Amino acid sequence: MINFASDNASGAHPRIIEAVARANKGFASAYGADAHTAEADAAFKSLFGDDIAVFYAMNGTGANVMGLKSLIRSYHAVICSQMAHINVDETGAPEAAIGCKLLTLPSPDGKITPEQVKPLLAAQGVVHHSQPKAISITQATEFGAAYTPEEVRALADLAHAHGMYLHMDGARISNAAAYLGVDVNAFTRDAGVDVLSFGGAKNGLLFGEAVIFFNVSANPAPAADFPYLRKQNLQLLSKMRFLSCQFAELLRDGLWLENARHSNAMAQRLAAGLANVSGVTVVNKVEANEVFAAMSPERIASLQDDFYFYVWDAALHQVRLVCSFDTTEAEVDAFVAAVAR
Amino acid sequence: MINFASDNASGAHPRIIEAVARANKGFASAYGADAHTAEADAAFKSLFGDDIAVFYAMNGTGANVMGLKSLIRSYHAVICSQMAHINVDETGAPEAAIGCKLLTLPSPDGKITPEQVKPLLAAQGVVHHSQPKAISITQATEFGAAYTPEEVRALADLAHAHGMYLHMDGARISNAAAYLGVDVNAFTRDAGVDVLSFGGAKNGLLFGEAVIFFNVSANPAPAADFPYLRKQNLQLLSKMRFLSCQFAELLRDGLWLENARHSNAMAQRLAAGLANVSGVTVVNKVEANEVFAAMSPERIASLQDDFYFYVWDAALHQVRLVCSFDTTEAEVDAFVAAVAR
Amino acid sequence: MINFASDNASGAHPRIIEAVARANKGFASAYGADAHTAEADAAFKSLFGDDIAVFYAMNGTGANVMGLKSLIRSYHAVICSQMAHINVDETGAPEAAIGCKLLTLPSPDGKITPEQVKPLLAAQGVVHHSQPKAISITQATEFGAAYTPEEVRALADLAHAHGMYLHMDGARISNAAAYLGVDVNAFTRDAGVDVLSFGGAKNGLLFGEAVIFFNVSANPAPAADFPYLRKQNLQLLSKMRFLSCQFAELLRDGLWLENARHSNAMAQRLAAGLANVSGVTVVNKVEANEVFAAMSPERIASLQDDFYFYVWDAALHQVRLVCSFDTTEAEVDAFVAAVAR
Amino acid sequence: MINFASDNASGAHPRIIEAVARANKGFASAYGADAHTAEADAAFKSLFGDDIAVFYAMNGTGANVMGLKSLIRSYHAVICSQMAHINVDETGAPEAAIGCKLLTLPSPDGKITPEQVKPLLAAQGVVHHSQPKAISITQATEFGAAYTPEEVRALADLAHAHGMYLHMDGARISNAAAYLGVDVNAFTRDAGVDVLSFGGAKNGLLFGEAVIFFNVSANPAPAADFPYLRKQNLQLLSKMRFLSCQFAELLRDGLWLENARHSNAMAQRLAAGLANVSGVTVVNKVEANEVFAAMSPERIASLQDDFYFYVWDAALHQVRLVCSFDTTEAEVDAFVAAVAR
Repeated sequence: MINFASDNASGAHPRIIEAVARANKGFASAYGADAHTAEADAAFKSLFGDDIAVFYAMNGTGANVMGLKSLIRSYHAVICSQMAHINVDETGAPEAAIGCKLLTLPSPDGKITPEQVKPLLAAQGVVHHSQPKAISITQATEFGAAYTPEEVRALADLAHAHGMYLHMDGARISNAAAYLGVDVNAFTRDAGVDVLSFGGAKNGLLFGEAVIFFNVSANPAPAADFPYLRKQNLQLLSKMRFLSCQFAELLRDGLWLENARHSNAMAQRLAAGLANVSGVTVVNKVEANEVFAAMSPERIASLQDDFYFYVWDAALHQVRLVCSFDTTEAEVDAFVAAVAR
Repeated sequence: MINFASDNASGAHPRIIEAVARANKGFASAYGADAHTAEADAAFKSLFGDDIAVFYAMNGTGANVMGLKSLIRSYHAVICSQMAHINVDETGAPEAAIGCKLLTLPSPDGKITPEQVKPLLAAQGVVHHSQPKAISITQATEFGAAYTPEEVRALADLAHAHGMYLHMDGARISNAAAYLGVDVNAFTRDAGVDVLSFGGAKNGLLFGEAVIFFNVSANPAPAADFPYLRKQNLQLLSKMRFLSCQFAELLRDGLWLENARHSNAMAQRLAAGLANVSGVTVVNKVEANEVFAAMSPERIASLQDDFYFYVWDAALHQVRLVCSFDTTEAEVDAFVAAVAR
Repeated sequence: MINFASDNASGAHPRIIEAVARANKGFASAYGADAHTAEADAAFKSLFGDDIAVFYAMNGTGANVMGLKSLIRSYHAVICSQMAHINVDETGAPEAAIGCKLLTLPSPDGKITPEQVKPLLAAQGVVHHSQPKAISITQATEFGAAYTPEEVRALADLAHAHGMYLHMDGARISNAAAYLGVDVNAFTRDAGVDVLSFGGAKNGLLFGEAVIFFNVSANPAPAADFPYLRKQNLQLLSKMRFLSCQFAELLRDGLWLENARHSNAMAQRLAAGLANVSGVTVVNKVEANEVFAAMSPERIASLQDDFYFYVWDAALHQVRLVCSFDTTEAEVDAFVAAVAR
Repeated sequence: MINFASDNASGAHPRIIEAVARANKGFASAYGADAHTAEADAAFKSLFGDDIAVFYAMNGTGANVMGLKSLIRSYHAVICSQMAHINVDETGAPEAAIGCKLLTLPSPDGKITPEQVKPLLAAQGVVHHSQPKAISITQATEFGAAYTPEEVRALADLAHAHGMYLHMDGARISNAAAYLGVDVNAFTRDAGVDVLSFGGAKNGLLFGEAVIFFNVSANPAPAADFPYLRKQNLQLLSKMRFLSCQFAELLRDGLWLENARHSNAMAQRLAAGLANVSGVTVVNKVEANEVFAAMSPERIASLQDDFYFYVWDAALHQVRLVCSFDTTEAEVDAFVAAVAR
């Protein structure tokens, strides 16, 4: 079987395994007061500047939910795409952990726009409605699309003009950075993002995400609340070094971008191959590491013997194909060949 | 510096690191549908019999809170010791995640008794009071004491007679098993425990705990709810194999007991050594891997230059000394010698 | 000013005020152990049969949220119309109090259908998605439409076939009963409704709603949980007699239906009058006590000097006109005349 | 039967019934935008000055929980007496609605002191512990004791010095004011109270409490959050005039103090009478409207035929006797005579 199901089904990058083994020397203070965590913090500050606060979470749902919880109260609402991971794939964790409501917007590619958000702001000040307080976007989206810096900025400006925050679920931020080819700050810090989930697990870690608060000197409260919320929400790791050392390694020598460039390239190769197969349509503009393709149900069924992937939309006969840091050209070519048969 | 601060400050057992490295082969279905998780499940069934359900959580707070949440509703109360980890060291996670109240009982060694519990049951049926629905005990306790099978059974019988559950926080269950010298079932399954947090991180894992539901054929509902509660409460790991493979290794060839026997033995050696030092009093009956000792503030201060440990009770000049799977005889002897100086 | 804004802006029926004054004799046990509550309970059993449990809540949000909370857990989802009061007008109370997610369906008149619900059931059994566990419908809907007994039964059958419950928000159940002209059991108990919020405040009470659990002998758990959930969710009135005596009076001699018939008749008179005015369109099929009409913004603006009502959809120039038990024919005629001017 | 069970078992003062009947004229905007609410607001500002925000809640649990929720977040702790209503008699509502932990202190009369609070503040800044953020006191306490202005001030100063708030559950604040004989501001606003639940139901209302935020110009955030939290927590009344008109009447011509003085006087008469009966001990210093008396179990049993009251502590043979605005001298004398028999 060859995996195109998920970047979560891949293993960890060998350098990550080695980093964990290296970190296993002697004792280290628990809960983050250790040298590996300090190193990872410094690496993030090297990337995003010093006016940030960095915390490590154990998974993406944890990073997203706690990042949002530090920004809002229970009577607030978070505006996001209907297809957002926080809306579809977290079993109602934002509602349960925060008590908030999600206000969702339709989107063909997972990106939302200021024009879609504006009508929802009429609820502000009306006591009977959940109060919009944050916009959450996914970079790259669940459909493999990347927001440009200008698109992020437009949403951030709208949010800030209405007393709201901009949250970014960056489970695949590395793929977005690799695609956009710009400094990662261009579409995060400099575009007005307030809190970022910086993905690790989907880009070669064993597990783990980082939560980055920007502009903390001007707005220190959310980052000050975060450590308590993280502990209370079951996300504080005792032997923190084994999580933070992975991020220190991921950020060393650009491994995070190298991994993402590879998975993106494999997705481009896959899309190009499929585009040449008659009866197959690539339905998304491939920007990150995901290819969505439509093909006949019979074709889908026969492929499932040798390849592991998800049917994204059964009614439309669309499948989702995810490439990872460890996807090989041979695997891509084997899939294309199998589809062509 | 030598560590007697916490078993959380120790690293992972080398076999655990190797197991993780071995698990990093090819792809594996995410979220637990993989061979390593199946192997760990089988190992737990080999230990506890087939009438269990096993789930993996990322940390002890997660294991405890979700185990309890699967048993009770928001209007219920959990009865526990005042010194219980769920009461003192989880930043109110049970209250926040479940909505429940903790009803706490004083205890010199962390153990509670049926006689203490009984008066609290008068609240049952009175709509103005949180309804006692679970008793939670820690095995071994936060003060290093182990419940005997008979003590557990007495609490379980009381709980069951009043429509309640018995939950066991087994963050250090291995140390209890090593001390008691009986089959682990004797003070869990066979003593009437309903849900057990089986500790991993404090016994040589990188991270991770297991949650064991007993007697699931007779009472399937809590275990059926658990997977959804785990996901919603931010505790479902995507690359589950890297958690479950650690438990598979821990349970292989008795590593869990071997580690615990060692840490317990080091605690005994430490206690014996300290008992010979004039001006030092070992204040607990050392059963698991923790020694509590009283000594002068000056002595405490001077030790802190070379040894890492916590002052447990500043007013009583008591320190807590925790031994771990990797604590050496030399380290113990060095501490005793330093105290004696 | 004349009120067409809301049945909440009306006062209480004079018989209700008298009932409260009469109940103010001597002392009465608090929290519901009193003769007035027993009388109201008996009146509801006279209406709905003996296999029910009845509780009193202080407002509609309370009745709905606690009724639902008694049925589901935090990882569950409630399926409802996008325009449902629980979705739009309760400031996220279901999410905050239950932790659940609402899955909403578009609907022009506020009614939802089994065909709309079915696709959402694909989430059942998938751990990453909130689990559909209840369907909630509003009778009559927020757009003034009444479900027929057959329509309710179809939703109940679908719910029960998939292990779910059917909840009915009956804030205007009296208006639905008056319109349908059938026994209220035909579209509640006999149609498979599991829990009903029986509205009071919108039908002439000072305040208060009743929560009715049907079929409690077969499914006793939700009704057994309810009293504790009510207290914990801030909805238990101490001097309960002053709430329950209102329901006892409302159910005496059919006052509930009399009030509803009057408000419905006023809505019919209003709709008929408006239908004759050129440039005005009644946009709903008037079934309960609400009329939705489209007219020019200038007309709307000029009416607002003398009449109190809400603009329902500013973009479509639609206003909502609600008739109440105390709306008079003269008030209706005055409005129609003003519109015609 | 004669009632000494609870001031909740009494009815409403006749002037309150009349005020509700008077408010039932024509229509009034719902949710508080009405003349009666404006009148009540003005009455409270007349009492407490203009730098307050006033809101109305439906019951005491609602007032307390929402007042606290507006001050704190889920990871915070509230310090209170073990016998506090929020701890004992609200079925865990603070934990469920806020997610917080209550840290409780023993107290013979329900009053707590700065010396008791101080050791708990060691938890501040430690991520594993719920963070103390509010002190909540009950005035008068559940044991009928009144804090002096100096005692309140000492707790407020301690709270404020540590970044915390002082919350006062004033379910029986009128009785405290009547006992202390000072301006109500002396032990609330001027003593540093941040939020006050001003009791109504126990002092002659049908239902209802007011929540008063002090010093809102300096600290506007909690009062700004409150309306949304009230709606989300099921406590916003639609026909608000019927709640607020009661407070307008209660504050008119000092009815609130008049009622409290009477109930206090009846408690003094009762205590004085019991003090003369051999074999009976009044165990509290009677300050508010409650008398706690110890007597033989046989005596208690025989009294229960004719009098309605609670056994407060069965082990100590203590009963609680509550006097109300409508308790008569004859009723008191009848009870004393019965005890003496």
